[in-house]
Amino acid sequence: MLIDGFFYAAVEAGIRKKNRLDLALIFSETPAEAAGVFTTSRVQAAPVVLGRKRLHDFGKAQAILINSGIANACTGEPGMIAALACSRLVADALKISENLVQVSSTGVIGEQLTVERFAVAIPGLVGSLEANSHGRVAKAMMTTDTVPKTASREVEIQGKKVRIFGMTKGAGMIMPNMATMLCYVMTDAAVTAGALQDMLLHAVDGSFNRITVDGDTSTNDTVLVLANGRAGNVAINSSDSEGGKALAAALGDLLLDLALQIVKDGEGATKLVTVRVVGAENDRDADAAARTIGNSALVKTAFFGEDANWGRIIAALGRSGIEIDPARVAIFFDDVQMVKNGLGQGTEAEKKATEVLKKKDFEVVVDLGMGTGQGHVYTSDFSIDYVKINADYRS
Amino acid sequence: MLIDGFFYAAVEAGIRKKNRLDLALIFSETPAEAAGVFTTSRVQAAPVVLGRKRLHDFGKAQAILINSGIANACTGEPGMIAALACSRLVADALKISENLVQVSSTGVIGEQLTVERFAVAIPGLVGSLEANSHGRVAKAMMTTDTVPKTASREVEIQGKKVRIFGMTKGAGMIMPNMATMLCYVMTDAAVTAGALQDMLLHAVDGSFNRITVDGDTSTNDTVLVLANGRAGNVAINSSDSEGGKALAAALGDLLLDLALQIVKDGEGATKLVTVRVVGAENDRDADAAARTIGNSALVKTAFFGEDANWGRIIAALGRSGIEIDPARVAIFFDDVQMVKNGLGQGTEAEKKATEVLKKKDFEVVVDLGMGTGQGHVYTSDFSIDYVKINADYRS
Repeated sequence: MLIDGFFYAAVEAGIRKKNRLDLALIFSETPAEAAGVFTTSRVQAAPVVLGRKRLHDFGKAQAILINSGIANACTGEPGMIAALACSRLVADALKISENLVQVSSTGVIGEQLTVERFAVAIPGLVGSLEANSHGRVAKAMMTTDTVPKTASREVEIQGKKVRIFGMTKGAGMIMPNMATMLCYVMTDAAVTAGALQDMLLHAVDGSFNRITVDGDTSTNDTVLVLANGRAGNVAINSSDSEGGKALAAALGDLLLDLALQIVKDGEGATKLVTVRVVGAENDRDADAAARTIGNSALVKTAFFGEDANWGRIIAALGRSGIEIDPARVAIFFDDVQMVKNGLGQGTEAEKKATEVLKKKDFEVVVDLGMGTGQGHVYTSDFSIDYVKINADYRS
Repeated sequence: MLIDGFFYAAVEAGIRKKNRLDLALIFSETPAEAAGVFTTSRVQAAPVVLGRKRLHDFGKAQAILINSGIANACTGEPGMIAALACSRLVADALKISENLVQVSSTGVIGEQLTVERFAVAIPGLVGSLEANSHGRVAKAMMTTDTVPKTASREVEIQGKKVRIFGMTKGAGMIMPNMATMLCYVMTDAAVTAGALQDMLLHAVDGSFNRITVDGDTSTNDTVLVLANGRAGNVAINSSDSEGGKALAAALGDLLLDLALQIVKDGEGATKLVTVRVVGAENDRDADAAARTIGNSALVKTAFFGEDANWGRIIAALGRSGIEIDPARVAIFFDDVQMVKNGLGQGTEAEKKATEVLKKKDFEVVVDLGMGTGQGHVYTSDFSIDYVKINADYRS
């Protein structure tokens, strides 16, 4: 989707390997209101540290420089110097303030960026900015992703059409709490940075924070939203206002779309499974149970094997640490009930459930029968290709 | 190892499939002092519930009936009735009190045992008890295990030779906190049940509670120790006495031997890796970090790929929730330092580390540089065969 005032470019810069798009730029003609969320890992990549500080201090951004190949994580002071140097190169080429530049890196942890490669590539990158090159950016930020991931929404706010376009990457080290999961969203909405940040936190909680591929959280996770105000709506300054609610709903919907694209393209994934826990004592218990089930290697390999092995689901539940009464547990695969009062429902139910498991996309519902707590996660299956990809990633 | 007074038998009872040893019996000529630890899962198999209660009430055991094929977990009241019926059949055939019978089951969760098969098989089982059939028992309790696992120790206590023999099984659903991990230990030591229980808790903490194959804890984990007193040592009534310490040390050593046999035979495992965290603020932090690293799918697939990918180790550390300062972290593969002050030590170190990773058995040491806390776990790698085994287990 084209959004007035945003421009995109991507080039082959040889960041770690030759002959692949690995350096991208997103540019907003005017400084945009900006909101962002970053990894909660105690180990944070240099670009995350830098980006968080700038966003906090300025609430605005005008350019995002993204490289794949090397994550610039665990790179110490040289890594921070490199991040700063790259952002300075971009600011100079664009003739904008360095403080309005966000940098993002994804790839191998522990290797240093070679700043010369950025210095050589950035003039050409800036020179090739175009309104319709967003697809190239989505490609340039891929690592083990097999497809680029974009989504767009339109929403009417106070009689004005507002456009939202987002792109994301991520296939492994995905359990964003806030993985290297990167996501950039551009909108022409007129909205303050504060209201945008509120909406973003809420939208991330319902989307990226509910997906898991491998239970590992990255050092580089980043979601950034840039709003340039070109839609001409009366500026939204609260997520609770009518316009705020409409924008928040569209943003939430867009992020969920992007998050599910990540799970579907999870390393080696063949299934998208929603694990929904209901009837827990409280929402926190439900969430903990859904996460334990959604991250269990035994549950995920059974999904890959299309085996309605509910015993592994109930075993994961048993070790999740939450309060349960096994005699009250019910388990459904889509609308097929496999377990009632903690007991399997026999061969016929299993046959039907096996049909559900053959689908690319299904839901497992666990009803604990204890209360009204609810929670869910989106997970992928655990395949032979997952192991192949990860036994080999750096080679 | 033969221990005076203990007898063993195993038969093909067709518990779930034909033509495999799947029913075993351990018999002590006289009632033995007994100690046990069982799964901490909130979902506990019927034999676990029954065995724990009997051990608590009587502190003694004389027979252990073990079946593979079906776990008798999540089987509700019919499951408990089956467990009781099986134990009664054994008690009657052996002419001993039912309260001295322990039953154990391992295999698929959620299927009911067919008691008739036990009724048909138990007379032959009892009739074939022999002092040197322990190897058949170790075989009969295997599920996805590829080899039977036994170990023995001798220790001198107050001038008397004391023998300890143990056997275990387990290859998947292994993160015993206390997996289906089953372990039986027979000794001729004279020791009270109370002292034996103290020693067992300590020994399990240093062995089975430190291993992980897949991070999943079973519904059936059980370790039982039977002591018949035939060694003729002065009865040990405290784990703190001189004799108690000697027995405790031998028991700890034996259980660690058995636990490591489980990791080496972990589903699809090709490596035994000790993950040791030192320099944490406290032991609890060190343990949490070691467990997060030892259970990370990305770390374990890198081990399989023989890739010294320390970035994944440090990423796991970052999400483990403990207090760290990335700039102080050091990582060693055996004695090769890969990371110092949070930074990679270059190509030469990586080349040497890659040689370490080619070994079947190596150690990863993470030094956090924060304090004196220590912890470790024993883990396996995550291979293509792991996924194959688990995508197919029930078929």
